Amino acid sequence: MNCQMQPKEIVKVPEPTLRRLPWYLSNVKLLKKKGERYVSSTQISKEINIDASQIAKDLSYVNISGRTRVGYEVDTLITVLENFLGFTNIHKAFLFGVGSLGGALLRDSGLTQFGLEIVAGFDINPALVGTTINGIPIYHTDEFEKKMQEYDVNIGVLTVPIEIAQRITDVMISGGIKAVWNFTPFRIRVPENIVVQNTSLYAHLAVMFNRLNFNNIK
Amino acid sequence: MNCQMQPKEIVKVPEPTLRRLPWYLSNVKLLKKKGERYVSSTQISKEINIDASQIAKDLSYVNISGRTRVGYEVDTLITVLENFLGFTNIHKAFLFGVGSLGGALLRDSGLTQFGLEIVAGFDINPALVGTTINGIPIYHTDEFEKKMQEYDVNIGVLTVPIEIAQRITDVMISGGIKAVWNFTPFRIRVPENIVVQNTSLYAHLAVMFNRLNFNNIK
Repeated sequence: MNCQMQPKEIVKVPEPTLRRLPWYLSNVKLLKKKGERYVSSTQISKEINIDASQIAKDLSYVNISGRTRVGYEVDTLITVLENFLGFTNIHKAFLFGVGSLGGALLRDSGLTQFGLEIVAGFDINPALVGTTINGIPIYHTDEFEKKMQEYDVNIGVLTVPIEIAQRITDVMISGGIKAVWNFTPFRIRVPENIVVQNTSLYAHLAVMFNRLNFNNIK
Repeated sequence: MNCQMQPKEIVKVPEPTLRRLPWYLSNVKLLKKKGERYVSSTQISKEINIDASQIAKDLSYVNISGRTRVGYEVDTLITVLENFLGFTNIHKAFLFGVGSLGGALLRDSGLTQFGLEIVAGFDINPALVGTTINGIPIYHTDEFEKKMQEYDVNIGVLTVPIEIAQRITDVMISGGIKAVWNFTPFRIRVPENIVVQNTSLYAHLAVMFNRLNFNNIK
């Protein structure tokens, strides 16, 4: 055995760690394609410009230990990271608001590769209700609670206009949704036990435009 | 006049501020729809659960000042924030890698509303080159430098497989791209004067899955 896996207590992994782990994963995947069998945190560090000690600390949350002077076994590290990050389990989700961004996400089959399967969309637009996008059915929002009985879903993807972002969030949660992936630029409020991830493409655009502008002027 | 606008020196606005400003914007837009004419940082604070002093500090980067006891004029605040965030100017972009996510982003016309217009896609897939998606032409990656002469573009959207993420980034930059919006889970390296925004949907998924899991077990 090149590594030991021990079950660990459930600890709340810091969010910055969880955001860095996929970087290590993609880097290690690349090393595998190049034919490498072992990788050390120093090696990863050189590739992606993060302190080796930080990488080792981040990887300490994952149930894997490396061998001195040899490092982590590449295949095992990939498997363990993918499991740890939840990419190997399929998590089913409903999407709310089949507008431009919502429709685009329904068409992005790539999410399944990382463990998210959007199994239905909800909207009130009569031109959309009853149709499918990329094979995914679109139901009227009124049917949501009924569909919660049919599908084993606990994630809701929020891509509605800001005016109804809070209302639809409340509907989702009262229907049993446990995690909201919020793509709107609106800061939704949820009870303490509900998970929220904000992915505001617009906030990222704002940062990018500002930095571009700053570089142009300075 | 309900507010004064003075030109300010160019200061590098902190990224957390830039990420919060779109929240204030969407909140103020909502207040406008409800018929409000003035808004204070205390009011915004109550709605979105961020300290009023933080909001006032964030807004101090923007060229707007409120009136004592009355607050900011809603219309002016919206206009000033939209300008400040760069949402009112159109920034043209090329997209690299018309796979599942890349194709989805080409179809998301909503980005234009926030100042980003993807004017062309690049790929090497012969089934895609020469076609259009949502009216946007797709060219062979080899044509990129030539197309840089034709279009006034300085932003590149990166949606390629991780194996070529760094190589395509290098190609983009040597062709004149000044900002890379990186959707891959790969940590790309760029010269100091190049802007990078990372939007890793997969990292967000990892955080969400972990939190869901944690809530289920605890």
